[in-house]
Amino acid sequence: MKNKDRYINLLKTGVVLFGEKGYHGTGIKEIVDSLQVPKGSFYNYFESKEHFATEIVGYYTSLLDELWVDWIASGPENDPLLMLQNSFEQMISMQEEQKVSIGCLIGNLAGELAESSKRCRLSLNNAKNLWCNRLAGHLERAQVLGLARKDISADTLAGFCWDVWEGALLRMKVEKSTDSIRKTITMLFQVFLRP
Amino acid sequence: MKNKDRYINLLKTGVVLFGEKGYHGTGIKEIVDSLQVPKGSFYNYFESKEHFATEIVGYYTSLLDELWVDWIASGPENDPLLMLQNSFEQMISMQEEQKVSIGCLIGNLAGELAESSKRCRLSLNNAKNLWCNRLAGHLERAQVLGLARKDISADTLAGFCWDVWEGALLRMKVEKSTDSIRKTITMLFQVFLRP
Repeated sequence: MKNKDRYINLLKTGVVLFGEKGYHGTGIKEIVDSLQVPKGSFYNYFESKEHFATEIVGYYTSLLDELWVDWIASGPENDPLLMLQNSFEQMISMQEEQKVSIGCLIGNLAGELAESSKRCRLSLNNAKNLWCNRLAGHLERAQVLGLARKDISADTLAGFCWDVWEGALLRMKVEKSTDSIRKTITMLFQVFLRP
Repeated sequence: MKNKDRYINLLKTGVVLFGEKGYHGTGIKEIVDSLQVPKGSFYNYFESKEHFATEIVGYYTSLLDELWVDWIASGPENDPLLMLQNSFEQMISMQEEQKVSIGCLIGNLAGELAESSKRCRLSLNNAKNLWCNRLAGHLERAQVLGLARKDISADTLAGFCWDVWEGALLRMKVEKSTDSIRKTITMLFQVFLRP
């Protein structure tokens, strides 16, 4: 296995295991064992588990970025709110297809690690900001088109969308059902954000 | 120390440590050591760490219930939405007073444990339902008074409020600031939920 492949495989495995059992619930040994690589090789790439977590946050963000490119391209271009709603519904469908209902790794790690690791908190905040910036751009376009409410700034609405999404994913996890998150996302984009 | 006191002290310590470091990040040894009680005594009260977590969820819920009684009594009685907003602002002030910004223990444990422990998931879902039922009652009263929107049922709005609150707490944690959660709560009760 090439170095780059091994690095990516460690990150991929980390995303799955951190998603399933959290940061503290996952051992480095478990990660390397599942890939059948020696434990020492982990430390060729990551100086610590904390460093590994920050790299995972970046990797997870880049995976989502790629998906968003497709979702945005799917439109409809003339209704950015509907495009956003469709994109969130794609994310919900992805949750339904997973054997383990991870929710959002950023949100889960925020709950678990934000207080105990400054380094992780900063990488999570960065991931959240990138996500909100993308949303804000489309919300602003919707405002210009007269399709989204203008009494609140696009930036503030984007932050609100992040809050709603992350909380709704937690509810999905405790209810073990996507019924309520589908309802929440429809309400958000068809009622609350409309003019 | 009486048995009941020791039981409550174990739960109190669990709330703090689980809040700070999560379920997996907290060892039973750490809990008993901080109370200077023998490890064996933990198992007089709890059959397992998982059982302990479910008891903590119930205890944390009962603590919040007591606070809500006071907040609801503080009113204003003639504007249930404003009463709810005031209550949420009290919860935000509590976050600001804490040395460690826990957020919501229910949300944090949902992110970390919902997938790996069915027993914990069910106790978290129960806590969430109790919380939403209380909210729904006040939202319904606001609807009857003509002070809250009626196009969405009070139950659905209560679930939406839970989503917003839990997500906003995660944002508070990654931003290490209560600025955005204060903005979100004001928007929720003064803009989105009004008729």
